[in-house]
Amino acid sequence: MSRIVYVNGEYLPEEAAKVSVFDRGFLFADAVYEVTSVLGGKLIDFAGHAARLSRSLGELEMENPLTEAEWLAVHREMVARNGLEDGLIYLQVTRGAADRDFAFPEAATPTVVLFTQSKPGLAESPAAKTGIKVASVPDIRWGRRDIKTVQLLYPSMAKMAAKKLGADDAWLVEDGFVTEGSSNNAYIVKGGTIVTRNLGTEILHGITRAAVLRFAREAQMKVEERPFTVEEAQGADEAFVTSASAFVMPVVAVDGAVLGDGTPGPVALRLREIYLEESRKAAV
Amino acid sequence: MSRIVYVNGEYLPEEAAKVSVFDRGFLFADAVYEVTSVLGGKLIDFAGHAARLSRSLGELEMENPLTEAEWLAVHREMVARNGLEDGLIYLQVTRGAADRDFAFPEAATPTVVLFTQSKPGLAESPAAKTGIKVASVPDIRWGRRDIKTVQLLYPSMAKMAAKKLGADDAWLVEDGFVTEGSSNNAYIVKGGTIVTRNLGTEILHGITRAAVLRFAREAQMKVEERPFTVEEAQGADEAFVTSASAFVMPVVAVDGAVLGDGTPGPVALRLREIYLEESRKAAV
Repeated sequence: MSRIVYVNGEYLPEEAAKVSVFDRGFLFADAVYEVTSVLGGKLIDFAGHAARLSRSLGELEMENPLTEAEWLAVHREMVARNGLEDGLIYLQVTRGAADRDFAFPEAATPTVVLFTQSKPGLAESPAAKTGIKVASVPDIRWGRRDIKTVQLLYPSMAKMAAKKLGADDAWLVEDGFVTEGSSNNAYIVKGGTIVTRNLGTEILHGITRAAVLRFAREAQMKVEERPFTVEEAQGADEAFVTSASAFVMPVVAVDGAVLGDGTPGPVALRLREIYLEESRKAAV
Repeated sequence: MSRIVYVNGEYLPEEAAKVSVFDRGFLFADAVYEVTSVLGGKLIDFAGHAARLSRSLGELEMENPLTEAEWLAVHREMVARNGLEDGLIYLQVTRGAADRDFAFPEAATPTVVLFTQSKPGLAESPAAKTGIKVASVPDIRWGRRDIKTVQLLYPSMAKMAAKKLGADDAWLVEDGFVTEGSSNNAYIVKGGTIVTRNLGTEILHGITRAAVLRFAREAQMKVEERPFTVEEAQGADEAFVTSASAFVMPVVAVDGAVLGDGTPGPVALRLREIYLEESRKAAV
């Protein structure tokens, strides 16, 4: 069955879901996005994604084309029209189409696109039971990673580089410290303390990160928000990554160094359990 | 009159020139481009652009979808169908459309788009007679600026920042040194010596840059390829930028400091003259 894709107010079969070649999302990567998970037909952490979208648009001096209530309505309509049970809703807003010029167009209507990806059993990912291996690669992305733009070529290249190294995903390293994963935030656990990079322009301010750290603190776990090195990660008891689509995903090896006994650690598994339970309760 | 746009082998009215929302050029900025100038209906420096396109694609592990002869034929067809006398031909190649995933798709057909921009009197730009003012802004782009990708959001933001500072364009500064302009290579002239940033991953390897430096050396001008600071630029006799669309464009002020008497310098004007003369002769 063909998916139904939202393009600028219209619900279209995916084959007909197109944008102008003059769209600045296509020509300049002048666009931001969000990915929201759906479990049991309900949206996970929707308010967080809506708030971050608004912030990303503001940083780029773009108007938010919809209100939060309208965004919610469109997301729900996409769930309904696609019969989505478990999966993802991707949304992208671009500055719109205009004749090509580096300067922002004076008047352009933002382009809004949403599509779904069905992922049956998303919360029961086999990878969460075995854990994933990561390989470190240099972080050469631009300096404003806190804005969730579609400038994703390097994260894609990093993921491919990690696969060539026999790993499942990449951890990006800048000035000797891990910034984050290719599309997720990175954590290590040592002596019961969870360590993850502090917020700044160097990393994405993960919606799942914020929720997981809140749950960790509520569960009396110790959290340190600071940079860590690959060497420190290799000496950790366990590690994990978080993202909207992978939730909490255990990491069992870093650059070939096996962590603990090479199976998912108890902190990662416990946080995954809490996150999924609490998020399902709060899903809308 | 509506332009004729090339999309994957078809020549379409611009209103119908669209790409899938699943195109990786739209979702991941997973695409490269070139801009070739047209003067008197003929292509300027075409071979240089074709060679750089091929290199950019190779760096991203993408196949070149057309041979150089085919690219030339499509460019000429675009000139003919659009009755283009003076202007630009923009071309973009993306990795193609595939369901969204950071990993490169195993099988995707590259998307090829070309469009024209008519610029009557392109070689007689009034700005070339008065010169432009530049303002320096931090260079926070990714680390592989030698690959001509569509990750152009920051150059756009830099141009807007420069305009807010009362300048016409931005010069990007990293670790204390000028890398290049927002969409052009940067030069200063002091005591008859032309200074411009040496090639590397920090800057685009300008096709116009290569030609202009060759012409300068042939004219017995002294050329130094090395980094320079904003302060050195402010103390220079003159400055200029080069690009495929602006050719050689004099710069008359850097961060408010007026160079010389505030009018285009003799080296910039002479190089512009030589470049236009030689390029027209070699146009195809």
